Amino acid sequence: MQFHVDGFKPGDPRFADPQDRVIPPPIKRPLPEQVDVMIVGCGPAGLNLAAQLAQFGDIKTCIVDQKDDRLLVGQADGIACRTLEMFQAFGFADQVKQEAYWVNETAFWKPNADAPAEIARSSKIQDVEDDLSEMPHVIINQARVHDMYLDVMRQGPGKVEPIYSRKLIDLSVDHSDSEYPVTLSFERLVNYSQYTLETEVVKARYVVGCDGARSSVRKAIGRELVGDALNQAWGVMDVLVETDFPDIRLKSVIQSNNEGNMLIIPREGGYMVRLYIELDKLAANERVSRDKIDPAYLIAAANRIMQPYVVDVKEVAWWSVYEIGQRLSTAFDNAEDGLPACVFLAGDACHTHSPKAGQGLNTSVNDTWNLGWKMAHVLTGLADESLLESYSFERQSVAKQLIDFDREFSSMFSKPPRSDAHPDGVDPAEFQRYFQQFGHFTAGTAIQYAPSKLVGTGKHQALASGQILGKRFHSAPVIRHADAKPMQLGHCVLADARWHVFLFAGNQAPMSADCRVKALCDFWADDAQSPLKAHTPEGAASDAVIDVRGVFQAPHQAFEVNTIHPVLAPIKGKLGLRDYEKVFCTDHKSGQDIYDMRGINREMGCAVIVRPDQYVAEVLPLDDFAGLSHFFAGILLPSSASLKR
Amino acid sequence: MQFHVDGFKPGDPRFADPQDRVIPPPIKRPLPEQVDVMIVGCGPAGLNLAAQLAQFGDIKTCIVDQKDDRLLVGQADGIACRTLEMFQAFGFADQVKQEAYWVNETAFWKPNADAPAEIARSSKIQDVEDDLSEMPHVIINQARVHDMYLDVMRQGPGKVEPIYSRKLIDLSVDHSDSEYPVTLSFERLVNYSQYTLETEVVKARYVVGCDGARSSVRKAIGRELVGDALNQAWGVMDVLVETDFPDIRLKSVIQSNNEGNMLIIPREGGYMVRLYIELDKLAANERVSRDKIDPAYLIAAANRIMQPYVVDVKEVAWWSVYEIGQRLSTAFDNAEDGLPACVFLAGDACHTHSPKAGQGLNTSVNDTWNLGWKMAHVLTGLADESLLESYSFERQSVAKQLIDFDREFSSMFSKPPRSDAHPDGVDPAEFQRYFQQFGHFTAGTAIQYAPSKLVGTGKHQALASGQILGKRFHSAPVIRHADAKPMQLGHCVLADARWHVFLFAGNQAPMSADCRVKALCDFWADDAQSPLKAHTPEGAASDAVIDVRGVFQAPHQAFEVNTIHPVLAPIKGKLGLRDYEKVFCTDHKSGQDIYDMRGINREMGCAVIVRPDQYVAEVLPLDDFAGLSHFFAGILLPSSASLKR
Repeated sequence: MQFHVDGFKPGDPRFADPQDRVIPPPIKRPLPEQVDVMIVGCGPAGLNLAAQLAQFGDIKTCIVDQKDDRLLVGQADGIACRTLEMFQAFGFADQVKQEAYWVNETAFWKPNADAPAEIARSSKIQDVEDDLSEMPHVIINQARVHDMYLDVMRQGPGKVEPIYSRKLIDLSVDHSDSEYPVTLSFERLVNYSQYTLETEVVKARYVVGCDGARSSVRKAIGRELVGDALNQAWGVMDVLVETDFPDIRLKSVIQSNNEGNMLIIPREGGYMVRLYIELDKLAANERVSRDKIDPAYLIAAANRIMQPYVVDVKEVAWWSVYEIGQRLSTAFDNAEDGLPACVFLAGDACHTHSPKAGQGLNTSVNDTWNLGWKMAHVLTGLADESLLESYSFERQSVAKQLIDFDREFSSMFSKPPRSDAHPDGVDPAEFQRYFQQFGHFTAGTAIQYAPSKLVGTGKHQALASGQILGKRFHSAPVIRHADAKPMQLGHCVLADARWHVFLFAGNQAPMSADCRVKALCDFWADDAQSPLKAHTPEGAASDAVIDVRGVFQAPHQAFEVNTIHPVLAPIKGKLGLRDYEKVFCTDHKSGQDIYDMRGINREMGCAVIVRPDQYVAEVLPLDDFAGLSHFFAGILLPSSASLKR
Repeated sequence: MQFHVDGFKPGDPRFADPQDRVIPPPIKRPLPEQVDVMIVGCGPAGLNLAAQLAQFGDIKTCIVDQKDDRLLVGQADGIACRTLEMFQAFGFADQVKQEAYWVNETAFWKPNADAPAEIARSSKIQDVEDDLSEMPHVIINQARVHDMYLDVMRQGPGKVEPIYSRKLIDLSVDHSDSEYPVTLSFERLVNYSQYTLETEVVKARYVVGCDGARSSVRKAIGRELVGDALNQAWGVMDVLVETDFPDIRLKSVIQSNNEGNMLIIPREGGYMVRLYIELDKLAANERVSRDKIDPAYLIAAANRIMQPYVVDVKEVAWWSVYEIGQRLSTAFDNAEDGLPACVFLAGDACHTHSPKAGQGLNTSVNDTWNLGWKMAHVLTGLADESLLESYSFERQSVAKQLIDFDREFSSMFSKPPRSDAHPDGVDPAEFQRYFQQFGHFTAGTAIQYAPSKLVGTGKHQALASGQILGKRFHSAPVIRHADAKPMQLGHCVLADARWHVFLFAGNQAPMSADCRVKALCDFWADDAQSPLKAHTPEGAASDAVIDVRGVFQAPHQAFEVNTIHPVLAPIKGKLGLRDYEKVFCTDHKSGQDIYDMRGINREMGCAVIVRPDQYVAEVLPLDDFAGLSHFFAGILLPSSASLKR
């Protein structure tokens, strides 16, 4: 898609008339008096959580923001492969892929050895290594991602719409109130003939502060961001340019000799680019006070860094100066003195990053992607409230890893290239190696949750050596058995807060007497120890809590759908219809074999338990019936205890 | 995507609450008094034309329908590969691919040799042969396709919304009125406290009758459908079923011994199927009069045909009886006695098909896909009105080919399998061969327009042996030069009514002194004979009428964007931004080489002229400057003559 050729206009580029891209904010409504979950802040973390909770008609969710409308411009733009995998679960990855710029290659530029005041390309490398993810690394305006979340929120059974123009002025917790322990007060800006302030009070079972680095929720629960408050300052600009720089449509990392460093990120639509310009490392005589920095200043700096190339800026769509350090909240919730948490923090409210590694938005949505299903489990009675303790445990540690990576990455970014004049500088070749090595971090696929009730210890990891415990389930191509559709196995995991068990069959004939998948299905269909029987509420479909799917090595034409065990082809819904979409075969035509690609033991097969957030929870032998039952019993309540579902 | 598990509900399945899927019809407005194009009928042909014309803000388009709202259920469901290629040009192919059922394989069933009253599978075959199209063959409710067209219409610069509840009661032509020769009268059903009928009169420059087999527009211009009015009757049902038939999620062609034939088409959402049940060939004692046919009758017939399998119908979402013959209008417009056409017919208004080969919707949208850009050319002053003569010439001949194919196909479908009892029957193996052989017809890729001003004679076909003159441009994978994006070359051709020239370079170094693409660009940039200079209106972008793109055999990293000739990287828009998306390279990594795949001469290269509707118009040597200029001069007016653009 090409757009912005006549200047930047916010909103859905499919509308030719920019006026039609502006959706009026929803009708102003009062806040509800009581909610299950109150989300403060309509940034990526808040919207992602609201989109997840909107999948439950029986969870009462409210999301508010101080601003008076949705975001239209600026801020984050990089969508890591891992984040796009998550968008797939919400159903809008295709739309993002269609609209976004794809980062296919990265160009590295360093001082020209023959003319050090000028830059020269040192290399171009593939941006995302082969088979790191089935998704590309893309760039798109954060505002468009918000729009897609808003659609998902609106479309879900919970039908969640943001309520704007609400400022949090007070938050208090009363643990003696077991139903609604949190009381929040908001100031409402009523925009009639004159401005008046109204106060509204909301009681909530859970509150999630997604209200940014200056989070009021964080302050209310006495948590603090710890770390480097200020880092190197960077100027950032979304610009429409004409230039002779040859890599203007590639992500380009530019290290100049004396003028500082710069990052070029091409943007969606074919014409716009984002420039990140280092400010602190500008030559001493060029330093100005922060409040004197403006687009003209940044454009001049970019042109000094890019010599001998010239960038002629035709329009500045958005600009800002970033001075964000790497900081981390000591905990991501208000649990203390043995009292359970009822207030949680997510996104910038509990961790901040420099913008260079593109971790802000991506880490924020993954915070609430971790929290959302857990909250849904507790609120629908599937799990005990203690499940929520794992949120701070898992995400605080991940945020720390990312901040450490970011600190190292940023420091490398800010150093001059090594030379006689800069013996402490960074060797451009080393920088590039580092960049490639940390590709898994920037792609979001390096995230690994530590062993806990939710992640096994790896005793049977060898049965699926490419599905690493604690890392995300790594998708691969398969053929769906019933309709021969080529597809990605990972795309079965949708944002519906269900658990998934992928039964990879050994090399025995599918559904034959010695087929271990069949034996497990027999056990799960009938035995009282079956996790399906133990944890599925009365009256719900057999796959409502745990979704079981089978993968076979045989060609898809080698066995019939009517031989499939009913656990893998259950009867569902009020009409009693059979679900034919749970059995897959390796793709014998493309040559891409999921067993080879993901190190699945061909003889034994294995069971891979995948969490609702797509992370690998456990790998077990197919005949470890007790181990499978035990795993789920450690997390899910007996179905007889389910109250709300 | 899975949906309909609790019963069929119309509308966008992304909305959990079926109530939210029902979009209220647009506010009732009066008809305009004068329009450039009046489209009668909101079926696929009409909506496709409206979506095309909506891309032009300066064309006044109106589309009306007798019905009081958009379509919600039933009718056509098969989308041929070729049609999906066209949807790509409108921007909604991804959405259809995500939502639709994919026809990957077809199963053939015939009487069991050992038990002739029962059926047995004879084979399964791949439905679409490899590399026939980059698009799959899919099945989706016609109503959803309408929804997507309505979005495109609304989003385009022309902002076209249908006006419902309008019945055409009179149409007259006055050739002496050069501006608005057609006068139409409509009856309007005004739905206030009581029903009243109002008459509205509209004057139009052009009218397109997309009003179905009983077309009032066709009758008004005295054209007739000629052919077999009635054919074999088929019952059709969209049903939610439970069955032991193993191929229920595959397209299945079933020939029973004595009970007739049946076609099973799985539908989107994972649960629904469409059954086509032959009625005339039911055993004699089972025949009933047409008005006694109901779902129960059809279900019983299906169960007799499918023995020994049983289909238990849980819900009938929609059903109908088709008795549509293969008929064709003598001409597709009202041109007569040397007077130019101002009324056109499209879709069922000028040709009808049996439903089995899925040609109805697919042929209808391709009618107006052929007409739309021509009308846009004439109305924006790019071409003379005589261009419109080619519509009836091209589409009438195509419709005839398709009807001949359909007649043969239907006849085969209706015959019993050959046996001692049925010596005149069709050999199932022969039927299957025929089915495969005619895969190009059913996929829509067999369509070939005859030589004319718009299609060359094939003198230089050997330079691009896989891009057949008169057939659609056959896409293949390439790498975009500036940003290394892997993509389909054919996806450059959008529904914007522009011409495209793909310059496939020979094996000379890109943009070197002996590069023929460079030489052609030099000529086109400067010479008065350049088609770009000759036909692009003053003040428009250089690619506004003819879009020139280059394809090179060199790896994409082998040459720099700033060496590209400005004809292939033009400055555009009011800001003067460079378009970097016109140069492509062969994909050296995937092994899919467009030169090999499409038979492009590696040494000489060639220029392939592609029409706005994606059909190959001409293949010429790169150095045939005169030939290229001559081709466009035969169609497009000198730009000095452009009045409206």
